[in-house]
Amino acid sequence: MKNKLPIALSNRHIHLSQEDLDKLFGEGYTLKKLKDLSQPGQYACEEKVDAVGPKGTIKGVRILGPVRAETQFEISVSDAFKLGVKTEIRDSGDIDNTPGLKLVGPEGETAMNKGVIVAARHIHMNTEDAKKFDVKDKDRVKIKIEGPRGLTFEEVLVRISDSYALEMHVDVEEGNACGVKNGELVELI
Amino acid sequence: MKNKLPIALSNRHIHLSQEDLDKLFGEGYTLKKLKDLSQPGQYACEEKVDAVGPKGTIKGVRILGPVRAETQFEISVSDAFKLGVKTEIRDSGDIDNTPGLKLVGPEGETAMNKGVIVAARHIHMNTEDAKKFDVKDKDRVKIKIEGPRGLTFEEVLVRISDSYALEMHVDVEEGNACGVKNGELVELI
Repeated sequence: MKNKLPIALSNRHIHLSQEDLDKLFGEGYTLKKLKDLSQPGQYACEEKVDAVGPKGTIKGVRILGPVRAETQFEISVSDAFKLGVKTEIRDSGDIDNTPGLKLVGPEGETAMNKGVIVAARHIHMNTEDAKKFDVKDKDRVKIKIEGPRGLTFEEVLVRISDSYALEMHVDVEEGNACGVKNGELVELI
Repeated sequence: MKNKLPIALSNRHIHLSQEDLDKLFGEGYTLKKLKDLSQPGQYACEEKVDAVGPKGTIKGVRILGPVRAETQFEISVSDAFKLGVKTEIRDSGDIDNTPGLKLVGPEGETAMNKGVIVAARHIHMNTEDAKKFDVKDKDRVKIKIEGPRGLTFEEVLVRISDSYALEMHVDVEEGNACGVKNGELVELI
């Protein structure tokens, strides 16, 4: 069990700036919490928005709270194809020179000029976990998955903060490609 | 280049028996070729069918020809979830105790009682290739993918026949999980 940690599959979701939230839901709007996520302080919201790309639209994209400094829309490679935007594999927050698209909410719309990314697979952990796994912030590590769709993920970004709960995040396509379920334990090698 | 081979992404598709083809398109129906596939003798057809599962429907599933002894519907894990059928990772042809569902065509419908699978990732090669790669039929090998979504696929089934063209097949979720494009070269390790 020494090198095991839980994995979770992230569906497409969006983090909004207060400025974009105001444009989409009305001036001074406050997000309504639907449920807490595993990372402390993070939550899924009741609110959803539609994303309109040059080739297609994805309706009902879940908003995650709280609001952030910049709007960031995390999609899958299939979503990028459907929307007609370029696939950019990026670490969260690294959004310079990424595509934008139009967001539509109940009270208005806003044009993101950047921030559409396919999130790089990553692990959240605190400093105690980091000692145990013998890794540093921003290391890239390997994670082994067992089973009939077994594989070893390379290039897994490590993010360390004492506000994090130990968890590996992959998108739905990565999770399905190796047949894991939410909460399953995987191995850092 | 010694251990390299091309990869291709398979979208959901269906192989029909003549009996099911008759039920869906009319007695004695002949499939119309749309385009040849990379495997000799295999082709995409103009015809499509709708697949109706207990939880959802997928419209317009492409039929691949020629007809086979048994109907087999190859889907992704996401498709299995949408349709509401159990995910069964299977080698092509190994369909005992797999789910079925209803197929609807322009002239009628048919109830598959088995044959819905998520195909195990695999490599087609001929006997010359097998010598070069030093593998035997039904071996399970490892394939390494480079790049920002780099990973190593384990449990890759080898299928050898002199009617095969050298190619690795993964489904769309597996392909997107490692960021490969059709025709890209990958490495057997």
